[in-house]
Amino acid sequence: MRIKLINPNTTQRMTVAMEECARAVIAPGTEVVAVSPTMGPPSIEGYYDEALATPGLLAEVEAGERDGFDGYVIACFGDPGLYAARELARGPVVGIAEAAMHAASVLAPGFSVVTTLARTRTMAWHLAERYGMTRFCRNVRAIEVAVLELDEPGSAARRAIVDECRRALEQDGADAIVLGCAGMTSLCAQVEDALGVPVVDGVTAAVKWVEALVALRLTTAKRGDFARPLAKRYEGEFARFSPTNPASATEPPPVRPLRYG
Amino acid sequence: MRIKLINPNTTQRMTVAMEECARAVIAPGTEVVAVSPTMGPPSIEGYYDEALATPGLLAEVEAGERDGFDGYVIACFGDPGLYAARELARGPVVGIAEAAMHAASVLAPGFSVVTTLARTRTMAWHLAERYGMTRFCRNVRAIEVAVLELDEPGSAARRAIVDECRRALEQDGADAIVLGCAGMTSLCAQVEDALGVPVVDGVTAAVKWVEALVALRLTTAKRGDFARPLAKRYEGEFARFSPTNPASATEPPPVRPLRYG
Amino acid sequence: MRIKLINPNTTQRMTVAMEECARAVIAPGTEVVAVSPTMGPPSIEGYYDEALATPGLLAEVEAGERDGFDGYVIACFGDPGLYAARELARGPVVGIAEAAMHAASVLAPGFSVVTTLARTRTMAWHLAERYGMTRFCRNVRAIEVAVLELDEPGSAARRAIVDECRRALEQDGADAIVLGCAGMTSLCAQVEDALGVPVVDGVTAAVKWVEALVALRLTTAKRGDFARPLAKRYEGEFARFSPTNPASATEPPPVRPLRYG
Amino acid sequence: MRIKLINPNTTQRMTVAMEECARAVIAPGTEVVAVSPTMGPPSIEGYYDEALATPGLLAEVEAGERDGFDGYVIACFGDPGLYAARELARGPVVGIAEAAMHAASVLAPGFSVVTTLARTRTMAWHLAERYGMTRFCRNVRAIEVAVLELDEPGSAARRAIVDECRRALEQDGADAIVLGCAGMTSLCAQVEDALGVPVVDGVTAAVKWVEALVALRLTTAKRGDFARPLAKRYEGEFARFSPTNPASATEPPPVRPLRYG
Amino acid sequence: MRIKLINPNTTQRMTVAMEECARAVIAPGTEVVAVSPTMGPPSIEGYYDEALATPGLLAEVEAGERDGFDGYVIACFGDPGLYAARELARGPVVGIAEAAMHAASVLAPGFSVVTTLARTRTMAWHLAERYGMTRFCRNVRAIEVAVLELDEPGSAARRAIVDECRRALEQDGADAIVLGCAGMTSLCAQVEDALGVPVVDGVTAAVKWVEALVALRLTTAKRGDFARPLAKRYEGEFARFSPTNPASATEPPPVRPLRYG
Amino acid sequence: MRIKLINPNTTQRMTVAMEECARAVIAPGTEVVAVSPTMGPPSIEGYYDEALATPGLLAEVEAGERDGFDGYVIACFGDPGLYAARELARGPVVGIAEAAMHAASVLAPGFSVVTTLARTRTMAWHLAERYGMTRFCRNVRAIEVAVLELDEPGSAARRAIVDECRRALEQDGADAIVLGCAGMTSLCAQVEDALGVPVVDGVTAAVKWVEALVALRLTTAKRGDFARPLAKRYEGEFARFSPTNPASATEPPPVRPLRYG
Repeated sequence: MRIKLINPNTTQRMTVAMEECARAVIAPGTEVVAVSPTMGPPSIEGYYDEALATPGLLAEVEAGERDGFDGYVIACFGDPGLYAARELARGPVVGIAEAAMHAASVLAPGFSVVTTLARTRTMAWHLAERYGMTRFCRNVRAIEVAVLELDEPGSAARRAIVDECRRALEQDGADAIVLGCAGMTSLCAQVEDALGVPVVDGVTAAVKWVEALVALRLTTAKRGDFARPLAKRYEGEFARFSPTNPASATEPPPVRPLRYG
Repeated sequence: MRIKLINPNTTQRMTVAMEECARAVIAPGTEVVAVSPTMGPPSIEGYYDEALATPGLLAEVEAGERDGFDGYVIACFGDPGLYAARELARGPVVGIAEAAMHAASVLAPGFSVVTTLARTRTMAWHLAERYGMTRFCRNVRAIEVAVLELDEPGSAARRAIVDECRRALEQDGADAIVLGCAGMTSLCAQVEDALGVPVVDGVTAAVKWVEALVALRLTTAKRGDFARPLAKRYEGEFARFSPTNPASATEPPPVRPLRYG
Repeated sequence: MRIKLINPNTTQRMTVAMEECARAVIAPGTEVVAVSPTMGPPSIEGYYDEALATPGLLAEVEAGERDGFDGYVIACFGDPGLYAARELARGPVVGIAEAAMHAASVLAPGFSVVTTLARTRTMAWHLAERYGMTRFCRNVRAIEVAVLELDEPGSAARRAIVDECRRALEQDGADAIVLGCAGMTSLCAQVEDALGVPVVDGVTAAVKWVEALVALRLTTAKRGDFARPLAKRYEGEFARFSPTNPASATEPPPVRPLRYG
Repeated sequence: MRIKLINPNTTQRMTVAMEECARAVIAPGTEVVAVSPTMGPPSIEGYYDEALATPGLLAEVEAGERDGFDGYVIACFGDPGLYAARELARGPVVGIAEAAMHAASVLAPGFSVVTTLARTRTMAWHLAERYGMTRFCRNVRAIEVAVLELDEPGSAARRAIVDECRRALEQDGADAIVLGCAGMTSLCAQVEDALGVPVVDGVTAAVKWVEALVALRLTTAKRGDFARPLAKRYEGEFARFSPTNPASATEPPPVRPLRYG
Repeated sequence: MRIKLINPNTTQRMTVAMEECARAVIAPGTEVVAVSPTMGPPSIEGYYDEALATPGLLAEVEAGERDGFDGYVIACFGDPGLYAARELARGPVVGIAEAAMHAASVLAPGFSVVTTLARTRTMAWHLAERYGMTRFCRNVRAIEVAVLELDEPGSAARRAIVDECRRALEQDGADAIVLGCAGMTSLCAQVEDALGVPVVDGVTAAVKWVEALVALRLTTAKRGDFARPLAKRYEGEFARFSPTNPASATEPPPVRPLRYG
Repeated sequence: MRIKLINPNTTQRMTVAMEECARAVIAPGTEVVAVSPTMGPPSIEGYYDEALATPGLLAEVEAGERDGFDGYVIACFGDPGLYAARELARGPVVGIAEAAMHAASVLAPGFSVVTTLARTRTMAWHLAERYGMTRFCRNVRAIEVAVLELDEPGSAARRAIVDECRRALEQDGADAIVLGCAGMTSLCAQVEDALGVPVVDGVTAAVKWVEALVALRLTTAKRGDFARPLAKRYEGEFARFSPTNPASATEPPPVRPLRYG
């Protein structure tokens, strides 16, 4: 089984670190390839960064389909482009916030998210809503350290994370922690050792979640919302992103009622 | 007051039609300029289309800031890039689904959305959630007509819309209709005449909502999530999207608690 | 276009102040007339006050219909009698809490309400629920100043409001403020200047929202819940409130299913 | 113990019928007095009717306080004026929709409401929300019979109710019925016999709920939102409604945080 | 009328105390019999304790059915086995958390729960969700005193409860208190006297709620989820728990749609 | 890694079938042992069955702890005893409904559950609520076939499942199916082949989910609600279930606030 781990930002050293962490947890027979887009933001710290990271991310998914990957991880805690990626992929696509929240929700009655910048906290709450996880999410906290400073030599990030996690455990009623940034992956074990409660890193959680789904032969539903994008010709410099559709995908979906909420 | 109406798809005849409808409702002293990006999808019918429409849309917002526009309308019913646009803009930015749902919620106890393709119905439900409008949204219905066929000569779109609206009024308990596609703007009055209930077109509703907010001297909050994107250098062909920040925006936001949900 | 702004309390100096604020924001061609009922409470600070303010308010709506007004604003932050008023009116009827929360929800990820008396805070939360705005409402705070003391000469109200708003911004994670009392209208600009974030006053927001809806030729749905009250003869001293119905309104509504929630 | 049952409409024959039903279920030592206001609508079939029924209802509560009643039932399925009545009363005040939904929620996994006119169905849904009962409420159905026709000789109301209840049991997944109108009280036993599932009439349920609360020596919280209305002089013909406050009630409430939602 | 009050733990002195409190509030003609299972935990302070208390509790319900009891109270604040008990019983079955939350929700805009051990607080929140009471529940607080220490001579429990209740009133915006443990029943009056706000004890509230439902001739719905358990032979030492079904209960339920949420 | 799969009913042939399916999906190095309790119901088709299945299930978890298992699957779609099991186990414990809903929620915008008996449908909805999955759950459908008839020779169960799944896809707007009974495990592949959409079996999904969590070295939080049960002596024949606590678990948990909902 081959899983493509896509770091949506362009900072290659983060991509390498994630791949290393991923390889430490995969089962025999699983292969993980980690990539970054060649264009876009070096770190994702807001909605604008997300929007500009998404085309490069989607290009990597489309390339992955041509290369026969079995599943994908979107390795940025905002899970940018997740639904668009599901339109492209046959296999499962999982975001790291999604996987981390799912995992934390089965390990403790409630978790707090500890992320980098305060400005991304509402983004994390929106994700908790989108995945049905508000019932478990006790709080979203920020350490106010930029993504790319996390692994700087001599960075105080590790200590800041541990301190904020302690506050979460003491003040929020949380009994588990979700690390709210892909750049925290390699700190996960140290933080868990310091705290003595489950600390979930989304990168490794998502890799294992995709690995599990592929082993179960489960794929993304290709009818309904996650059907292949309709074939059409895009304009201008995005022409190369124009979606094409295999013949079998062109029949219109049935008109049917939708029960929601 | 100058409002920039951005049609995120590249189909210029839709842009022209929207501008015409917008001009019919604005107050004296308001100017509306409608534009389309030069790159991206000619119609938006899924998450992938949305993702690839967003960079061009955001370029138009950034250009609008340079040109001194007072507010923006995002004129596609999925409201793509809305939060990212708010990071860029000083003035208000309103999506057409957002404006239409707000308007319908003050006119009737409940509304149904009538949109184009069934595959976008969950997208509409997600928007209803995002805007707090699930309490008013009775149903989302699709006529299974592609966006660009709506205004084809001899198109049966108008009749299909009216028929589906009638079913909504009879079967959903809805007393108002929200038109779920910017391409339906010019049909709004005819549909309303046929039905005898309020029919809300988001394009004109959003233009008036932005006009109102600008008249009230209200702007987008520039602290917190909608602060300017952090200045950083983007890689590769997206380098031209690199966000820059005026000096005043560089001070870090305060660390403070967040009450949510 | 003529908009009737109804202050549901009987304190005429508040009515005058609101009319002045309203006139400062309306478009050319719009006329605003502000009135108070001749009977009822001089200020509304609880459910009982609301209940006794409502008949006078509704009499003003009914008179407004006879006078051909195009829309109505209910200018008390509890939005008393809103749905009853919608039964009477052909045009749009908007409450100031409703308009303010809608506006704040498009300008910031979250807002806090700052109101007068603590005993009305749950009322504000109920309104947030009713309008689908709990997702945006971070907190409801009170300054514990009575409504009629707000504009007393030498009142410390302005300072108390600014101080409470500051606490909201620091402690709630809010990035915008909704002023929770019609009596705060004329302080809005000063408060906004002091804070540097969007501060929404419901009176002016509702006037502009109604103006927008009328310009869009949108009206209250006259089938379903907001149909004219059924004609019947009221007893005793309320006989003069007896609803009458034009012939066209007497046909029974269709029996049809209702999808809710 | 003395309970005042207030029928908020002026139709005395309904009041008499309710009193009779109430007396059949009370415990030894409990006295029930049923009254109607002398002014207002003869039946309540919408928000406007509710608004005009409320002042008379509140006058009856205030009179009840002078007469030393221990608790109150508001006997109209819209529970009009419930919170305002709680401001006036020392003892418990329970609405019939509230009591009926509470009761049904402990007897079955889900219930459907069967009410009179379709235009009041959203009102019933709003009540379900207000009482936290949406989780149990499967549907709200209407028989399209006016309130005052329910007990007309030869009325087909009873059959219409039974038929609609049957449809609720078959189509909604409901296993209990809530009768959605005080005028259905005397039909309750017959309907239950015909159906073989629990059928809850709110009038008797509310009488017993109030009786239970009084026996438990529980009263309405007189601090916070349900404190006595603030003393003030009302204007014009509503001067007689001016709230007065015992000295003990005049101390201002503490300023304290509010956790909500 | 005969009500069986089942204390699901085996501590007989708690059972006796509850029976005494219950007898002080019942109406003439009502009989209350309080029992404890002969097997299981002496106190219930977690999910495991609950699970092992439930078989004994259910045996008491089944015995109660043979003895002709009219209704049941489950007298532990976690309401263990509530739905299973409803499958067995013809008459109403009410949990003390359920009854207390219902009662508090009609007496005040919001309540806080004060319970024993912090580890049971999420359990209380889950119950609030299950009964639709999150809208009223402001907070769940713990005094960190074990259940069986509550009534130890010289125990500081009473003072700890009063102190925690005071914090709830000051910090949570609550105006009523729900006592979160059956062992607090006999302290209820003293706590209420000390606080001056409604303090609801679930044991007496549930007894009165069941008494009311029985007086209304309401029973548990015996079709759908709460139908008798299907007859089958249990294995091993639980063979004696094997459910048997009267003939009339063996016909399969109708296949019908279920509207939920 | 060793995973204990506990079928909470006593029907050994179901246990064997599940083990077989589980073994087909596990990674090299993982061992799965499937067991059934020696006492309790042979099938679980209601709340009473669940309650009596739970003690035997918990005994198996406690035995598993002594035997050094790394994680547990509760293999009945009601996920009985899940939280109690988490109190006992150091490693992860996952229910099959939980795992199946999590999996389906990442593969499609919405799923429908197809279960055995109609009387368990509300149970499934309650689980969807508990796991935050109502946002994805379009409907719960029943085929009205008893659990133990599923695998009878010549059973029409497979066809009934496929037919009901088809109706779900056509009428509910679902794009994936969750099989709502552990007894359907071995039919999963056939059903998926017939339908062409993702069909999730909870047994295999839970095994893989636990395997993933163990590989990530994640464990159940042992502070807070899922701490070991407090040591105490149980009465009577349940004395053997008395929880014991290692010394390290006896320190009282910190008193700390809890943010919920």
